[in-house]
Amino acid sequence: MSRVLLLSGPNLGLLGQRQPEIYGDETLADHVRAATEAGRRLGLEVDHFQSDDEARLLAAVHDARGNAAALVVNAGALTHTSWSLHDALAAFDGVVVELHLSNPAAREPFRHTSVVAPVANGSIAGFGGLGYELAIEAVARLLDVGGPAGGRGTSRPEEER
Amino acid sequence: MSRVLLLSGPNLGLLGQRQPEIYGDETLADHVRAATEAGRRLGLEVDHFQSDDEARLLAAVHDARGNAAALVVNAGALTHTSWSLHDALAAFDGVVVELHLSNPAAREPFRHTSVVAPVANGSIAGFGGLGYELAIEAVARLLDVGGPAGGRGTSRPEEER
Amino acid sequence: MSRVLLLSGPNLGLLGQRQPEIYGDETLADHVRAATEAGRRLGLEVDHFQSDDEARLLAAVHDARGNAAALVVNAGALTHTSWSLHDALAAFDGVVVELHLSNPAAREPFRHTSVVAPVANGSIAGFGGLGYELAIEAVARLLDVGGPAGGRGTSRPEEER
Amino acid sequence: MSRVLLLSGPNLGLLGQRQPEIYGDETLADHVRAATEAGRRLGLEVDHFQSDDEARLLAAVHDARGNAAALVVNAGALTHTSWSLHDALAAFDGVVVELHLSNPAAREPFRHTSVVAPVANGSIAGFGGLGYELAIEAVARLLDVGGPAGGRGTSRPEEER
Amino acid sequence: MSRVLLLSGPNLGLLGQRQPEIYGDETLADHVRAATEAGRRLGLEVDHFQSDDEARLLAAVHDARGNAAALVVNAGALTHTSWSLHDALAAFDGVVVELHLSNPAAREPFRHTSVVAPVANGSIAGFGGLGYELAIEAVARLLDVGGPAGGRGTSRPEEER
Amino acid sequence: MSRVLLLSGPNLGLLGQRQPEIYGDETLADHVRAATEAGRRLGLEVDHFQSDDEARLLAAVHDARGNAAALVVNAGALTHTSWSLHDALAAFDGVVVELHLSNPAAREPFRHTSVVAPVANGSIAGFGGLGYELAIEAVARLLDVGGPAGGRGTSRPEEER
Amino acid sequence: MSRVLLLSGPNLGLLGQRQPEIYGDETLADHVRAATEAGRRLGLEVDHFQSDDEARLLAAVHDARGNAAALVVNAGALTHTSWSLHDALAAFDGVVVELHLSNPAAREPFRHTSVVAPVANGSIAGFGGLGYELAIEAVARLLDVGGPAGGRGTSRPEEER
Amino acid sequence: MSRVLLLSGPNLGLLGQRQPEIYGDETLADHVRAATEAGRRLGLEVDHFQSDDEARLLAAVHDARGNAAALVVNAGALTHTSWSLHDALAAFDGVVVELHLSNPAAREPFRHTSVVAPVANGSIAGFGGLGYELAIEAVARLLDVGGPAGGRGTSRPEEER
Amino acid sequence: MSRVLLLSGPNLGLLGQRQPEIYGDETLADHVRAATEAGRRLGLEVDHFQSDDEARLLAAVHDARGNAAALVVNAGALTHTSWSLHDALAAFDGVVVELHLSNPAAREPFRHTSVVAPVANGSIAGFGGLGYELAIEAVARLLDVGGPAGGRGTSRPEEER
Amino acid sequence: MSRVLLLSGPNLGLLGQRQPEIYGDETLADHVRAATEAGRRLGLEVDHFQSDDEARLLAAVHDARGNAAALVVNAGALTHTSWSLHDALAAFDGVVVELHLSNPAAREPFRHTSVVAPVANGSIAGFGGLGYELAIEAVARLLDVGGPAGGRGTSRPEEER
Amino acid sequence: MSRVLLLSGPNLGLLGQRQPEIYGDETLADHVRAATEAGRRLGLEVDHFQSDDEARLLAAVHDARGNAAALVVNAGALTHTSWSLHDALAAFDGVVVELHLSNPAAREPFRHTSVVAPVANGSIAGFGGLGYELAIEAVARLLDVGGPAGGRGTSRPEEER
Amino acid sequence: MSRVLLLSGPNLGLLGQRQPEIYGDETLADHVRAATEAGRRLGLEVDHFQSDDEARLLAAVHDARGNAAALVVNAGALTHTSWSLHDALAAFDGVVVELHLSNPAAREPFRHTSVVAPVANGSIAGFGGLGYELAIEAVARLLDVGGPAGGRGTSRPEEER
Repeated sequence: MSRVLLLSGPNLGLLGQRQPEIYGDETLADHVRAATEAGRRLGLEVDHFQSDDEARLLAAVHDARGNAAALVVNAGALTHTSWSLHDALAAFDGVVVELHLSNPAAREPFRHTSVVAPVANGSIAGFGGLGYELAIEAVARLLDVGGPAGGRGTSRPEEER
Repeated sequence: MSRVLLLSGPNLGLLGQRQPEIYGDETLADHVRAATEAGRRLGLEVDHFQSDDEARLLAAVHDARGNAAALVVNAGALTHTSWSLHDALAAFDGVVVELHLSNPAAREPFRHTSVVAPVANGSIAGFGGLGYELAIEAVARLLDVGGPAGGRGTSRPEEER
Repeated sequence: MSRVLLLSGPNLGLLGQRQPEIYGDETLADHVRAATEAGRRLGLEVDHFQSDDEARLLAAVHDARGNAAALVVNAGALTHTSWSLHDALAAFDGVVVELHLSNPAAREPFRHTSVVAPVANGSIAGFGGLGYELAIEAVARLLDVGGPAGGRGTSRPEEER
Repeated sequence: MSRVLLLSGPNLGLLGQRQPEIYGDETLADHVRAATEAGRRLGLEVDHFQSDDEARLLAAVHDARGNAAALVVNAGALTHTSWSLHDALAAFDGVVVELHLSNPAAREPFRHTSVVAPVANGSIAGFGGLGYELAIEAVARLLDVGGPAGGRGTSRPEEER
Repeated sequence: MSRVLLLSGPNLGLLGQRQPEIYGDETLADHVRAATEAGRRLGLEVDHFQSDDEARLLAAVHDARGNAAALVVNAGALTHTSWSLHDALAAFDGVVVELHLSNPAAREPFRHTSVVAPVANGSIAGFGGLGYELAIEAVARLLDVGGPAGGRGTSRPEEER
Repeated sequence: MSRVLLLSGPNLGLLGQRQPEIYGDETLADHVRAATEAGRRLGLEVDHFQSDDEARLLAAVHDARGNAAALVVNAGALTHTSWSLHDALAAFDGVVVELHLSNPAAREPFRHTSVVAPVANGSIAGFGGLGYELAIEAVARLLDVGGPAGGRGTSRPEEER
Repeated sequence: MSRVLLLSGPNLGLLGQRQPEIYGDETLADHVRAATEAGRRLGLEVDHFQSDDEARLLAAVHDARGNAAALVVNAGALTHTSWSLHDALAAFDGVVVELHLSNPAAREPFRHTSVVAPVANGSIAGFGGLGYELAIEAVARLLDVGGPAGGRGTSRPEEER
Repeated sequence: MSRVLLLSGPNLGLLGQRQPEIYGDETLADHVRAATEAGRRLGLEVDHFQSDDEARLLAAVHDARGNAAALVVNAGALTHTSWSLHDALAAFDGVVVELHLSNPAAREPFRHTSVVAPVANGSIAGFGGLGYELAIEAVARLLDVGGPAGGRGTSRPEEER
Repeated sequence: MSRVLLLSGPNLGLLGQRQPEIYGDETLADHVRAATEAGRRLGLEVDHFQSDDEARLLAAVHDARGNAAALVVNAGALTHTSWSLHDALAAFDGVVVELHLSNPAAREPFRHTSVVAPVANGSIAGFGGLGYELAIEAVARLLDVGGPAGGRGTSRPEEER
Repeated sequence: MSRVLLLSGPNLGLLGQRQPEIYGDETLADHVRAATEAGRRLGLEVDHFQSDDEARLLAAVHDARGNAAALVVNAGALTHTSWSLHDALAAFDGVVVELHLSNPAAREPFRHTSVVAPVANGSIAGFGGLGYELAIEAVARLLDVGGPAGGRGTSRPEEER
Repeated sequence: MSRVLLLSGPNLGLLGQRQPEIYGDETLADHVRAATEAGRRLGLEVDHFQSDDEARLLAAVHDARGNAAALVVNAGALTHTSWSLHDALAAFDGVVVELHLSNPAAREPFRHTSVVAPVANGSIAGFGGLGYELAIEAVARLLDVGGPAGGRGTSRPEEER
Repeated sequence: MSRVLLLSGPNLGLLGQRQPEIYGDETLADHVRAATEAGRRLGLEVDHFQSDDEARLLAAVHDARGNAAALVVNAGALTHTSWSLHDALAAFDGVVVELHLSNPAAREPFRHTSVVAPVANGSIAGFGGLGYELAIEAVARLLDVGGPAGGRGTSRPEEER
């Protein structure tokens, strides 16, 4: 059974308490549970790791090399600045899906830039907790049938330009 | 049964022939069929309209007012420039999902800007034909349970800032 | 009796239904009627043409060459992007008045740029439906007495700089 | 009878002498007379104040609070730089109309930015002396029927974004 | 005999009437005739299609796939904004030549950007009607001997960077 | 018989050896020969001067004043930076044609700016060695019939804006 | 007893009336009284000068040379544009404290730039009327113990970089 | 007794040793002592936490939710880049004061941008160690009387624009 | 005898006291005396007017119309922002010389922009008090022989581009 | 007798022939003669060197080290791009005066930047041939009395910021 | 024997596994061994510390104060964003050498900015593992003979401008 | 024995005399001698060529094709502007090392851009004369073992993006 690592970045532990008008009132545990169940239905083992600490998130990506077939990454505000995360993801050789609860493109300008996007197969944003299930489903399909042009190895730019 | 309008913009009729290394080798008809079947499973009637003509796309959005519960919009290259489309979508009062086959954030700079994003509930990009099914699933859930913070009326910015 | 062509661009057919807090609740027909009556009082025949289609708007401008003494143009969102419209207006040799229901300068940044402005004699913005009457009145006076410095031929820059 | 204050900024006292190819050959007194007569026809008392001194213009705006129902402002070159004027106008609770003799959008780049626009109901530009009459007519209608969305209190952004 | 499609964009139907100091006083028919005759001399069949309508221009490019060996494109003002045209041309697998009557690089800034250039083999600008003959001659040679580095397949960037 | 000076800038002496995938494998001598023969057919005497030295190129432009009817300029990388060359060309009173082997608009960003363009009648780019023949043909026609609007004196902007 | 000059710029005379949701409902007189009393407690004589007139504010700064030990400056909207005020403050050789009622960094972009900051020892913003007392207290301490690194002479940059 | 958390970011542990010409020669312990004593005088319990570790600073902000009435934040260089800190502070529902020893607006350009400012009630900068006392005094007053417009809930923008 | 008006802007009354390492230790009176004597030798009557008040400087320019043959303008920091001054100078029909004691191009970036330059015949900067004499000498010559290309009417751009 | 080197850059040898409406109709020899005579009157030996070759201009600056007390530099279009010239002038330890015939600040944008300015004592621009005499006079005075703040060693920034 | 601390930032632990076409196939241990041996030859004790954790890297720099004579810093992607690291290095009073395996200036734009550079004596980039030896050699020489202009105290800018 | 060409650009002949606080007090001959001796030790023949003349530097790069195994390039201020040098280096097929005496990244902004970097294997900056020896050592190693990823042919980008 393929293993998928779901990564949650800074402040996501506050979900359900923090600004529900933006992020909804479900907790992170709710979202993880939904993702895990979706994984079970689709034959994927979903593990989850949340940290406010960039270094521990990098370590999780490093450890996933060889141990996981896919990463689903909601990097919180590190999405916009962490080139270290970008470089770690570029060195991971499985499927990478970028995930956001809200729609960053419709919020403040600093949220319009993603350093994850150039090293992801695709992204899902703005569907709240539902996004977690959609992301797992996307992973299942990408692992099964390859990406749009036959696999992430060629469809994902190794380096941003 | 709720009706969903799937809109396809310029050049999407070429799918399957044009740059398969980017867009895959399925045709638009393949994608529409997958979306329609996903809709059937989820109790949604999916209609599709493709046009290379911005005016006809605008008319389709206008006609959807009162006739459809949701729009799934892959606007092709109009994504990056058509403020008319932005204004038409802002005047539509149902769910709006932005959809792309490839991951625009990982391609040329002109594809990094979306005029659809500020008036969409969320977006799905980079999963090829699979994105069509994911988008229909997202619509189903949004219509069922409301958006992240209780419905699109409040979560979608009427005006970009 | 001089003929004035009133041109309305994309989405303006929705007036009265779309975002009344911005555009008011009068319909486009209401505005056209007011403009037509103002024209009658001032000895001007006012024709109106609305289209969501840039090409048909261009054709209307082309047809106005030799057939109309003035254009009143509310180009909707094409105001901000259609250099084709700019070029068509530059080739029209009568009076050109730019018209907006709301005040674009006080809205989103993309509305702060007008490609119509450099080829217009003047502009009227922010007065809702009243603007249609003011625009017709402006045309009447410009046709009667010439522009600010003796005629549009010299006061209107043929080319933007 | 409602009172309207017509404000004229720096260098406007030179009208009729300065660059007639841009500003026409009528004097400021001619324009004020036309505005006053237009006001008389429409039941508005029009007062005029011209100054090259930003501080005195600010004082006039302050004094208008409670004493005038509307301001018509041709701020000259202060249009482009005086955030003090912007703040004073934001604190005025009547109708505000921005007025220009020439069409700033068709002139030098520094004239493309207006600090008055974000705190005005609307603007009229490019019609030479005729603009004064149109502005008074606009005021009359705005005072009578409210602005596009029912009154300036809501249609005018208190703060620029 | 190889077929070449000559495409003319918005406003080009006005040639001969519009701003002759910029575009010369020959009509589009004059230019097409010259191009056709040049084609005849060089063993090329030249067809021409003019439209003010972006969607019809896209359709013409789509139809040329498999039916024409080369496109000569004078896209008018769409040159500067139509990423849809860019994408359609990228999906055409013959020779593409960009053509302009005037020299856009020596005119207004908005004309300095071309979305056609990144998907063209080369461009010819500033020679008025003569450019049509030069473009046909260029096509003839490119079809005969391949492009500068042995054929457009490799010399034309599929994607702009 | 009119004299045309063909100018080649820095590094062009390497043609045939340097990056053939961009510049082709013909030498500069091949190109000059083709241009000379094209000139002979068209009644033009073609001289050629190549230098890596900006000062000597300037001297060649100065000497051409009164001695040549036209300049064909492939300035190499000086195209993007040499305002001295721009000023020298502005002081030349014959026809000026800008020439490039590759298509600079489709290459690195620094090649998108040309200081030659604002003082040229037109440009030809992207056709490899064929461009030399096309440029000579363009000169022949411009000398014969005048430029697009009746001669370079008026169609070429003396000063960039 | 050391003398402190409290300077208030344009529109600050409106405090208590203007936009209380931003500036609070205390008047300028209230703030001056609080500052004066704070000064009395700390052994400082506080004088106050308000003007909407940049020239009179400059004169006040000039007069303070030799007559005051410190300036507390709330320059209103001149904060963002008046390089004349910047130059006058640079020529004052005592303590300079920048003061704002609201937090400019959290408001419109034009308020994010301060020409006072580069010539001030420090700034206090966002505390409403309380800021006046804090500013006087800051002055008292700076006069007593010198600035962070031993005195304003070295800690305040004479020239912005 | 209300609790205030004083947060110190990276490198602030070096105070007293590092660049005394900029930061003074007092240690962080000196500043904390002064703040604590000021708190005691004003009935506030002041706790302090310093870390070079962004994740631990985020945890401290999270823990303060419900446990502290106010935060005083000197985030060191994280001030300019940590959107994670911005998001954590936005989720804190008490008073937030931004504090700096030096005056960032008068130093290098990278220090001119603060991600803390949009989610703070106010800021104090440039007064060295004295700033700590001023900040505590500001907190005391804000907790007592509410902010400028009656409380931070409304005066602090939840989202930057 | 021709009359020349020497205008000095804000803060120039401080000369001799303010930052002598930049502006020298001569007073404004010293400079005016030198200019007056230079004028006497060259047959020019030199009047001087200094003000910190933009409005009074504008009035002085207005009054000079018809009363002075030339203006020598050291506008202080208004040089960088006062488009009102720019407009007033554009309406003056004699010689205009821009003068600075220091070399603005070698100082802070805000001093690199001059709104006086586009409406001046020429400028003199960086020579301290000597600049006053040079400016008078320049005026004498310009009045005598016309400007570089035969008079300011044609050599001075009426409008900046 | 002090020696002054007058340096003239690219294209200046064309003076009198090239664009007289900008540069006047005097030749460079005329200007040199005027400068030389001005030098004679003031006790300065004026040498002149013109070259279109940047390397020879650099050599002239190098040779002037120890051999000339001052440089008067009209670098032509190298003014805007030659950081090599900037570096050479920075290594020269006498007076440096920047000279232009026309007023670059009133011409095309590329002429608004000077790499000479940051390493010059001052500049003179826009007075045509008269500028040469003024520059020599400026040198005489600077050598005699020192610069504005007592000598170029301190008033000239060694390094641009 | 002088001590040198070699610091390695995020993701560098992956060397040898991650993208060998960019970073080579040697491991970090290989590089450290080479550096240590180079140090031994040159009489320097080389210690190494790698961390993905910015806070631990800061602590290492803090600890090096007084304990190491030099730092060799390969900060990985923190090179481009960590102003905290910049500030820590600015507070270190020994030699600082910036090191990169690849040549950042020839890669993606985000790698073109270094926050380490302004506080480093020098940098070595693009030589793969060899760079470690070169850096140690550079340190040895800098400690021996002082920096280019006699020591880092003066040659290293304490503050970026 | 492999041959290495050491190239020195404009103004480098002044070393030892010019601004020793930046460049040190050794002469270029000193540096060349050190490089030559380092070459001798490492089995490399080092030739040196200095010129202030871009054309002669280009010629030296051209001549090195086939005659030298490596180039060490200190291009002086041409580093920042000479795209001709960039193109010449791109056509050289050996090792290229960029060298600077000072650390450009820590100096003026114009020195932060290098046109040499995109076509170099690596760079060494900020170590004064020592850099010459380091560069030769780097060349020796690169020639011996190939570059970081197995040879410069693949690791050096042929074209900047």
